[in-house]
Amino acid sequence: MSTTPQTELWRRAAQTRQATALAHPNIAFIKYWGNQNDNLRLPANPSLSMNLASLHAITTVQFDDSRPADSLTINGQPVTGPGLARVSTSLDLIRAEAGLKLPAQVTSASNFPVGSGIASSAAAFAALAVAGAAAAGLPASGSSLSRLARRGSGSASRSVPAGYCEWLTGSDETSVATSIAPPEHWDLRDVVVVVSQAHKAVGSTGGHSLAATSSLQAARVAGAADRLAACKAALLARDLPAMGAVIEEDAVIMHGVMMSSRPPLYYWTPETMAIIQATQQWRADGLPVYFTIDAGPNVHLICDAAHAAQVEAAARQIAGVQRVLVSGPGGAARLIDR
Amino acid sequence: MSTTPQTELWRRAAQTRQATALAHPNIAFIKYWGNQNDNLRLPANPSLSMNLASLHAITTVQFDDSRPADSLTINGQPVTGPGLARVSTSLDLIRAEAGLKLPAQVTSASNFPVGSGIASSAAAFAALAVAGAAAAGLPASGSSLSRLARRGSGSASRSVPAGYCEWLTGSDETSVATSIAPPEHWDLRDVVVVVSQAHKAVGSTGGHSLAATSSLQAARVAGAADRLAACKAALLARDLPAMGAVIEEDAVIMHGVMMSSRPPLYYWTPETMAIIQATQQWRADGLPVYFTIDAGPNVHLICDAAHAAQVEAAARQIAGVQRVLVSGPGGAARLIDR
Repeated sequence: MSTTPQTELWRRAAQTRQATALAHPNIAFIKYWGNQNDNLRLPANPSLSMNLASLHAITTVQFDDSRPADSLTINGQPVTGPGLARVSTSLDLIRAEAGLKLPAQVTSASNFPVGSGIASSAAAFAALAVAGAAAAGLPASGSSLSRLARRGSGSASRSVPAGYCEWLTGSDETSVATSIAPPEHWDLRDVVVVVSQAHKAVGSTGGHSLAATSSLQAARVAGAADRLAACKAALLARDLPAMGAVIEEDAVIMHGVMMSSRPPLYYWTPETMAIIQATQQWRADGLPVYFTIDAGPNVHLICDAAHAAQVEAAARQIAGVQRVLVSGPGGAARLIDR
Repeated sequence: MSTTPQTELWRRAAQTRQATALAHPNIAFIKYWGNQNDNLRLPANPSLSMNLASLHAITTVQFDDSRPADSLTINGQPVTGPGLARVSTSLDLIRAEAGLKLPAQVTSASNFPVGSGIASSAAAFAALAVAGAAAAGLPASGSSLSRLARRGSGSASRSVPAGYCEWLTGSDETSVATSIAPPEHWDLRDVVVVVSQAHKAVGSTGGHSLAATSSLQAARVAGAADRLAACKAALLARDLPAMGAVIEEDAVIMHGVMMSSRPPLYYWTPETMAIIQATQQWRADGLPVYFTIDAGPNVHLICDAAHAAQVEAAARQIAGVQRVLVSGPGGAARLIDR
């Protein structure tokens, strides 16, 4: 999209107090669920993810005094209330670091299909952090940007670095994501199977704060570092069966926590279960594919590029599947020319 | 079935070295999954269940020397190999206690519908323990009988006492089940929803020994006593919403352990998930019903007698439901006249 070097774009942004950034959503192989500190979004456990190249949010931030307060437009629609307040909170962090007092106009758009069931907040808050920091004249520091993104939406921290990313626990300064392998390290595919949402899940609002009410959460957190180490080693070795086993285990452990929280959160539908069962059958039939599931009913099928078409075709045969999206590994959040 | 007093039947059995016993299967409200000692079947955690009056196994044991070794017939079919060996192991315990050296002829039959998906081992081994002990001249001691049943099949310990039963952890002598309330304490119903088994679950053989491979099992075990205490208190108070919440939580915790064991055990099918979702909807619509799920895809819907017909009718509307059975609380394992 942009051939202008990032350094040049950051220089221009600081001059014009305006910047536009693009960021991808990510799919977690080792899940984030529950915080040590809800306000700072310090996660209970480390997590690991892959950016999704096919999907992105593009966000422009313009600091100026043409309006009295922050304004927000998402996909052409003005947003006020809690949505705007959450963006202003992120901008306040940026303004405080930059010593800036100007309000901002924020416009954001994503290429996510409507009803794709993919959370847009990771991409949106990563793009907001990068565009906002650049427009405010802050330096292009990956760890600072990941931290700013995290404060807006935890998993957004993982959408800042490139490719395959690990998000560490720690303090406000140290709980940031870093790239453990670039996109070109391994040409994996996420075949996103969007299923019927006829059985609407219990709302996910407050899900992270519910995590601690499950008697399984402490065990989930205690085991996360080991699962992450196993996942990371398998990822670096491009060992799909080893990685697949641990990502499936990690996903069902998170859903076990969700289903045993008080009140319980049931995100799975019959279609989710059909794809879980089908995945095991496909593997038994020789197709190397593994599932993971975020806080929703859709199933992400992870495979290598060579098998993606076959996995996609198989997924489309499942009753209740509404849409299938396919994405390879994506790059870092970055400024783009407008 | 029998109007002869149990004391008279026990006296006759000791004289004739022959006895026939009836026992019900049970549905666990707080689950048994994993052992502290596989050989002795000492459970990792205490559990709590209801006997199912509508279903039973009837077993006759005859000690005599008309044959050189133990023989076994189940539902009219001669059984040899591992099935016979497991029964002989139970008989050996009884013979050792009774100082008896005779082989036994064992015939057993159950009224479970074929493909009902209800494990028959609890009823079968409870009936075997009672008939075998009586025919061997052992005393009619509830705790001894529960222990003998447990050694054959863990959950059989809970089919020995009447009604609602609690099975304690402990040593070989103390890990027995006792009745915490008779059947007439509360006229609950188990509406057993038998679903399609098209997606065949991973075999359950060795499931108990797999429990410890899940990183969630220790947390499941650690929380079981509290869940049991909450379930027992709600049961004694006839508080269905309180009991229902904890039995659902306990069931999904067990399945979380199963799905995160190595290798994972997935017993749920799309139909299982449909009934889990439907149960929540039915409650939202005012129907007081709660689910539990054993090591299989079928769902047990727990409600009071007044709502059983409505629950049964609702369950029959779910696509993929093959059969619905309904049972109230059952009595103790006992000798019967033939």
